Amino acid sequence: MKKSITLLPGDGIGPEVVAEATRVLDEIGKQYGHEFTYQSAAIGGTAIDQFNDPLPSDTLALCKESDAILLGAVGGPKWDANPAHLRPEKGLLRIRKELQLFSNLRPVSIYNSLVSESTIKEEVVRDIDLLIVRELTGGLYFGEPSERLDIDGEEGAVDTLTYKRSEIERIIRMAFQLAEVRGGKVMSVDKANVLESSRLWRQIANEISEEFPNVSLEHMLVDNAAMQLIRNPRQFDVLVTENLFGDILSDEASMISGSLGLLPSASLSADGPGIYEPIHGSAPDIAGKGLANPLATIASTAMMLKYAFHMEDEARDILNAINKALDSGIRTADLVYGNQEAVSTSEMTDAVLQYI
Amino acid sequence: MKKSITLLPGDGIGPEVVAEATRVLDEIGKQYGHEFTYQSAAIGGTAIDQFNDPLPSDTLALCKESDAILLGAVGGPKWDANPAHLRPEKGLLRIRKELQLFSNLRPVSIYNSLVSESTIKEEVVRDIDLLIVRELTGGLYFGEPSERLDIDGEEGAVDTLTYKRSEIERIIRMAFQLAEVRGGKVMSVDKANVLESSRLWRQIANEISEEFPNVSLEHMLVDNAAMQLIRNPRQFDVLVTENLFGDILSDEASMISGSLGLLPSASLSADGPGIYEPIHGSAPDIAGKGLANPLATIASTAMMLKYAFHMEDEARDILNAINKALDSGIRTADLVYGNQEAVSTSEMTDAVLQYI
Ligand SMILES: CC(C)[C@H](C(=O)O)[C@@H](O)C(=O)O
Ligand SMILES: CC(C)[C@H](C(=O)O)[C@@H](O)C(=O)O
Repeated sequence: MKKSITLLPGDGIGPEVVAEATRVLDEIGKQYGHEFTYQSAAIGGTAIDQFNDPLPSDTLALCKESDAILLGAVGGPKWDANPAHLRPEKGLLRIRKELQLFSNLRPVSIYNSLVSESTIKEEVVRDIDLLIVRELTGGLYFGEPSERLDIDGEEGAVDTLTYKRSEIERIIRMAFQLAEVRGGKVMSVDKANVLESSRLWRQIANEISEEFPNVSLEHMLVDNAAMQLIRNPRQFDVLVTENLFGDILSDEASMISGSLGLLPSASLSADGPGIYEPIHGSAPDIAGKGLANPLATIASTAMMLKYAFHMEDEARDILNAINKALDSGIRTADLVYGNQEAVSTSEMTDAVLQYI
Repeated sequence: MKKSITLLPGDGIGPEVVAEATRVLDEIGKQYGHEFTYQSAAIGGTAIDQFNDPLPSDTLALCKESDAILLGAVGGPKWDANPAHLRPEKGLLRIRKELQLFSNLRPVSIYNSLVSESTIKEEVVRDIDLLIVRELTGGLYFGEPSERLDIDGEEGAVDTLTYKRSEIERIIRMAFQLAEVRGGKVMSVDKANVLESSRLWRQIANEISEEFPNVSLEHMLVDNAAMQLIRNPRQFDVLVTENLFGDILSDEASMISGSLGLLPSASLSADGPGIYEPIHGSAPDIAGKGLANPLATIASTAMMLKYAFHMEDEARDILNAINKALDSGIRTADLVYGNQEAVSTSEMTDAVLQYI
């Protein structure tokens, strides 16, 4: 098969990890006879520097024409003082909205050889296999107004959390569909004891569950969920929640795996191209030093193969290779404790390539 | 000293744990020559059942006249289907607003003899001493509109996150004042890369920090904070954040201590009476069975003695007694693993009383 992939390296360590991940894609292409072609475009801080726009229109056009998008990371202190519309994150938020990537999948699993690296006890995190489904184009991230304003004669600010029925329905349905081919359990997380939007969310979740007689549905308040993810994460199969709760809970859950440098994500729309990206940030402090862990981005290409191209075998090969590379004992700096020596970004990729 | 305390036992296990806690207050009174008097009033679900109002006006009036308020817990499945204004939680939210309890203090510490009961590794949580300062009367919990509405011809819902300068200033200032007599570090948590209200929050935090040359200020995004609380909780001294983030992060942080049944809280205003309450919920499943852990409520009375009555020695006596009771090895059901036998709610209190 031929597939065109847009690369959005972005800021900080983004370019490094994206470059490594394409080496893995190329190897898969060679072995399975696929042709992956790449075109790069600017997003985030580097796009602001070059084009004064965190999401240049050329970038968006290129993304729309491609079969899938591989993104590194955006952001950094350099742009932190910029006005809202000239912040790197705005590029990410806008592309999510433009491509209608309403569904953000964040699987949390743990590589066998890293099970002791989590700060959570081994018996609690062993064999974890949890999928967080985060709504990605609604809620507080996009509601209007979001602005400074005068409140009772004082300086103030407002942000707005809105959801409409169709937005909730499609993400809940996605969660049920995913649960059907996994453990058959959906946990819907909300704050229905306080928020009106959460009460609508809960009502619609109950409705949609009628369509899926083989999948169970439970509800959990977000504060309790933040606790249960630490207390007993194995109770979850698919956890579905709104945008901001998903942001917080998925980063929290990443700690189960011991390092942010390991976890991939996929942001999907109903039909167009999706974005595949590591959940870690741009880590400007270690950028350009060859220290970054490429595994989260490499694992993101596995999600791309699976969800965008329906190449299940190819995806599995990549995950197996990551597993074997880690089993062989090599570690990037983020995974090193004590006196062990760390390998570089490209050495870690070399190790993965060796097992493909 | 004479002090009048309003008891709001509330729902579920609330009445049991509040009753136990007053036994401890009485013992302290006897030993130090204080006279604590109590009057009880209805709140939450029981108030809905009796008065069709989760916060009857008599309850509010009584609270306003007293020196401090001890609350158990509110809520339960019985009232979950009620309309918003007839939900138990609404009583809690309204009393927070009426008494202007803008500052919610949630200390997270770990009793020595329980350090191995956390699902987080001992070396990560040992000696933890973190204070979460949560804004309690603003943000999404109280912003208007919060309602169903038509969006693009569809059913929808909106909630509103607003903060004004004075609301942010007072809670940030409180955090700095507390840090001054603690570890001298404030971590302000926000989502400034997305929310306008967070950008105002961050700006004001920077301004207020000028008033406190001996206290350091750092900022952290809420998704990162959710991670760092698990990765390395000892990095925090005082963590200050807005209402909903504080709700989520403080419940998450409670897992450091191994059980929700241990952690107290204080909700304070600028001058009037504060509410002291355990951070756990009403646990309807175990209500009335004598299984509840009273220690969080007993520890809340220690916060009352300290913050409301400036009885530092008395407060310390209670915390020492809790420590000794736990050191003696007795455990309520929530703390029991394996074949160990659990003591009842009142037996746990007996043990505490023995060491006062
Ligand atoms: C960079 C930021 C806007 C973004 C978000 O909050 O969605 C990031 O934290 C993420 O989770 O992808
Ligand atoms: C009961 C609920 C409304 C409340 C809150 O969210 O504030 C509770 O979770 C708390 O943290 O005190």
